[in-house]
Amino acid sequence: MAQPDPKRVKTDDDAPYELIYWPGLPGRGELIRLLFEEAGVPYVDSARTPDKAAALVMSHISPESVGDDHNPPPLAPPILKHGDLVIPQVPNILLYIAPRIGLAPKEGHGVYHLNGIVLTIIDGLVNEMHETHHPIAVSLYYADQKEEAKKRSKYYIKDRLPKWFGYLQRVLDAKTSGEGPWLYGDSLTYADLVLFQCFDGTKYAFPKAVEALEKSGKYDGVFKLYEAVKERPNISKYLASERRQAYGEGIWRRYPELEED
Amino acid sequence: MAQPDPKRVKTDDDAPYELIYWPGLPGRGELIRLLFEEAGVPYVDSARTPDKAAALVMSHISPESVGDDHNPPPLAPPILKHGDLVIPQVPNILLYIAPRIGLAPKEGHGVYHLNGIVLTIIDGLVNEMHETHHPIAVSLYYADQKEEAKKRSKYYIKDRLPKWFGYLQRVLDAKTSGEGPWLYGDSLTYADLVLFQCFDGTKYAFPKAVEALEKSGKYDGVFKLYEAVKERPNISKYLASERRQAYGEGIWRRYPELEED
Repeated sequence: MAQPDPKRVKTDDDAPYELIYWPGLPGRGELIRLLFEEAGVPYVDSARTPDKAAALVMSHISPESVGDDHNPPPLAPPILKHGDLVIPQVPNILLYIAPRIGLAPKEGHGVYHLNGIVLTIIDGLVNEMHETHHPIAVSLYYADQKEEAKKRSKYYIKDRLPKWFGYLQRVLDAKTSGEGPWLYGDSLTYADLVLFQCFDGTKYAFPKAVEALEKSGKYDGVFKLYEAVKERPNISKYLASERRQAYGEGIWRRYPELEED
Repeated sequence: MAQPDPKRVKTDDDAPYELIYWPGLPGRGELIRLLFEEAGVPYVDSARTPDKAAALVMSHISPESVGDDHNPPPLAPPILKHGDLVIPQVPNILLYIAPRIGLAPKEGHGVYHLNGIVLTIIDGLVNEMHETHHPIAVSLYYADQKEEAKKRSKYYIKDRLPKWFGYLQRVLDAKTSGEGPWLYGDSLTYADLVLFQCFDGTKYAFPKAVEALEKSGKYDGVFKLYEAVKERPNISKYLASERRQAYGEGIWRRYPELEED
């Protein structure tokens, strides 16, 4: 077979953006949805046809799938389909979408600065967050690893949350953060939307811990940024809409016993 | 402060690539080193001046650092410095370097296909691998979480390694993988180097598990790719050199008790 020629398959910029993700909770898909919502860009979202969504996801990630003529298979959702292009992985999908819809520079150092910030947020507030309730195995129920989850959560709240909030405050204190409340430059970028969702999920999962972080007064910029995103007209409308799904048994879960002292 | 203008700060393409990472083990830094070694591109590596490396890393990631005039602070190494640009996060550094040194396309769908494959490999064979010996807290010694590590490793070997090896075999079986042994297209890309290192580390950490995967005959393409990278002239020379560091107490660790039945 010939080497795939990146120029042979043209993305049809008029093609709709299609988000392929599990229905019934915000999950990692939310980190992508918020970009379209903020930018007012229409998108197809499998979560809005919940009876068909699981089958659609499975058609892309079944253990037999070897992708299609133009794309390697994804391992897991979220998946973005745009014309002929099918790609997985949140930071990768964001990297593709954000410059196309005005939420990131198209070239230059900013591309890598933003990608670096976003990968770091996802490490701490998505991936490590998930480990707090599944420290032993994703294939086991929470109930079967609850004792280990309590231990892990204790250290997450004590060591990790302050580390990440402190880091984000330092990004806000850096010279590369401009006049406004944003992480990078003078206007909102997709990194701010990623932080908003991760903060919101963290507050849902560990409300007492986040309250303590707020009271410490050390991370005021992070708390201000969260409110500033929440008040954006399109985000505010979205959060009040039926499109915003309730938290459930996803990354951000509320198990009060994980916050006990 | 004005918004950072990505065009104001020009990368000096004649500037050396500088890898800033802890000395004494391959670690995440190795995922970057291998690109320079394969491409025969000179690079400065803090690991080669071990007495100064820790201080250099700390100057970038100290809890007081707010970056410099052009860059937000990184949270953790590896860090790449290239002219005025300073960026963290392995997949981000690879995304920046690979197209510049001939190991990835500069534009088009291949950029996102490769980034998706690499992010997926890192999820399973770097991040989840690290959790096998530190399932409770990075701030605790291994000895203090050994029982949980045994449990996590059991599921990692049973569920996760076959999942990732199976996925990588499917990427090799996809139409986007060309004639040769490579993951994407007809020639070696940086994704192959990332897979090589992750495979090598996994084999070091869990030799019996990898032997069982080989004997199953289900992942022959993955094993062939590993050998094909190992035989590349520049990689082969590098692996025999003093620049290749021995495994230690990093991501890939050898604790035989974690492989017991």
